[in-house]
Amino acid sequence: MAVYTEVNDDDLRTLLASTYGLGDLMSYKGIAEGVENTNYMVHTTTGTFILTLYERRVATSDLPFFLGLLEHLAKRSISCPLPVRTREGSLVSEIAGRTAAICTFLEGIWVRKPDVTHCAAVGRALAELHLAAADYALKRDNALSLPGWETLFARFADRADEIAPRLADVIAEELAHLKAAWPRDGLPRGIIHADLFPDNVFFLSGNLSGLIDFYFACNDTLAYDIAICLNAWCFEQDQSFNVTKSQALLRAYQDVRPLSQAELASLPTLARGAALRFLLTRSYDWLNTAKDALVKPHDPIVFLRRLRFHQSIRDARDYG
Amino acid sequence: MAVYTEVNDDDLRTLLASTYGLGDLMSYKGIAEGVENTNYMVHTTTGTFILTLYERRVATSDLPFFLGLLEHLAKRSISCPLPVRTREGSLVSEIAGRTAAICTFLEGIWVRKPDVTHCAAVGRALAELHLAAADYALKRDNALSLPGWETLFARFADRADEIAPRLADVIAEELAHLKAAWPRDGLPRGIIHADLFPDNVFFLSGNLSGLIDFYFACNDTLAYDIAICLNAWCFEQDQSFNVTKSQALLRAYQDVRPLSQAELASLPTLARGAALRFLLTRSYDWLNTAKDALVKPHDPIVFLRRLRFHQSIRDARDYG
Repeated sequence: MAVYTEVNDDDLRTLLASTYGLGDLMSYKGIAEGVENTNYMVHTTTGTFILTLYERRVATSDLPFFLGLLEHLAKRSISCPLPVRTREGSLVSEIAGRTAAICTFLEGIWVRKPDVTHCAAVGRALAELHLAAADYALKRDNALSLPGWETLFARFADRADEIAPRLADVIAEELAHLKAAWPRDGLPRGIIHADLFPDNVFFLSGNLSGLIDFYFACNDTLAYDIAICLNAWCFEQDQSFNVTKSQALLRAYQDVRPLSQAELASLPTLARGAALRFLLTRSYDWLNTAKDALVKPHDPIVFLRRLRFHQSIRDARDYG
Repeated sequence: MAVYTEVNDDDLRTLLASTYGLGDLMSYKGIAEGVENTNYMVHTTTGTFILTLYERRVATSDLPFFLGLLEHLAKRSISCPLPVRTREGSLVSEIAGRTAAICTFLEGIWVRKPDVTHCAAVGRALAELHLAAADYALKRDNALSLPGWETLFARFADRADEIAPRLADVIAEELAHLKAAWPRDGLPRGIIHADLFPDNVFFLSGNLSGLIDFYFACNDTLAYDIAICLNAWCFEQDQSFNVTKSQALLRAYQDVRPLSQAELASLPTLARGAALRFLLTRSYDWLNTAKDALVKPHDPIVFLRRLRFHQSIRDARDYG
């Protein structure tokens, strides 16, 4: 939620007109969205765009995967930002010393308090995304799957108990459990969004109008993406699990892409993994964010509570 | 440059449709502009608007003056944000626990490196602003004129030398000089913008397209507003004074509103006062901004150097 890099008006004017052929610059405003990158909303004589400058965390070597994926999905009628190619055909450019990309602007609002119909819409959109991405040519490993979790945990294990009593033990035990229980093979794999939280889903007049922020997208088990959404969409403010929401999400998903018995059976384990993944990254950020940072870290504890819930689940029927 | 207050989508939808009658919300983004307030760029089915939530520093009792002034000026063809009135006719509303206003969105870019033609355009626009505001009914004292400077200085005098060696002495001596030399009466007074820096002036295709941020506007000596612009527009990055720029600014101003001999003669003193005013506020902010603040304070020292320049001026002819 910050502008890390200032962009000069002359540089931007040249980039838009000469590099992209997007017409004359009319206005641009740094917007307070995106934790990782700097984003500007740009008006030109040809339309409205989002200019993204890639800062820390996003590896520029991954940009062809991310931007190519958006282009691939948009061609298959998934509503997502469409990267604009430069006159020379490139998906990336450079400004203010950063690698940059320009995408079409997507109208829509992310819903602060999702209800059951929003959860159903997300389930459907996730399945459509999985199908549309099935023939995408590029691949990217998930850096935040089991081995990545262990590496990340090792970097703050000695300080984990600063966040909550006994947290280090809880995480170590859960990692041991997941290493034994994680579904090895047999489950359908493909491109997953991997971060489809409410702030990455836009709605207009009650209808889902677009998906954004694909910078965690990767190849992994498709049902793990559903498990992430169960964590992201189906808990109430008091951290109670709303089974009506998870039921709506799962049914809508299966209307588009039915799940196998093996996928359904794996959901409690995958949901534990998803809760642990966000517990780990938020804990790390919590402990390592400078006090003067422009972005305040999310509270990790909600994902400890969500993990506890999934640990208590007997089988996938508890998700509806 | 920050979003201090988060706005909920349901609250904003209601505000726009019910309170203002501006149609359905299509998107909104917190924008990284405005040091004092929270600003959102809002798209609705009827247009693009800026929603401002008033935070610290801006007294809500001053809002009728500020917003009424914008309405007054817009009616007189000054290009500035036009406040939208609520269905009940009010210039202000409330959202997220803050007093708020909605203005029309103004296309345009503020120029990072102004040239002589920009300075001329600003001179002309400033004179037009002074004439258009002449019959504005409301009044507001300038809280940042001589007595206000003394009060502000008293709050950090004991720490001023942390910023630069002997700064406390320099400021005290300058205050004593200005108390004796400041033009008491006789100079034309009226509404001044009081903060017309490059980031508050928009250009489109080389032409001035609008003035923004009137939250320091007040009743004061008109020529003092010119003195502020000399400080804001006519120094180069290396703090050298560009007399071609000041000449262009003054000539363009006088094409619209000729200055009297008394006004011209007062410019060096007024310019010293303007430099001191920004030296004082920036020094105070520099010493009092928490290390974890969302907004980084401006460096006060550039205004010490600009003050030194104006102290060296023999008469107004040195400004061109």
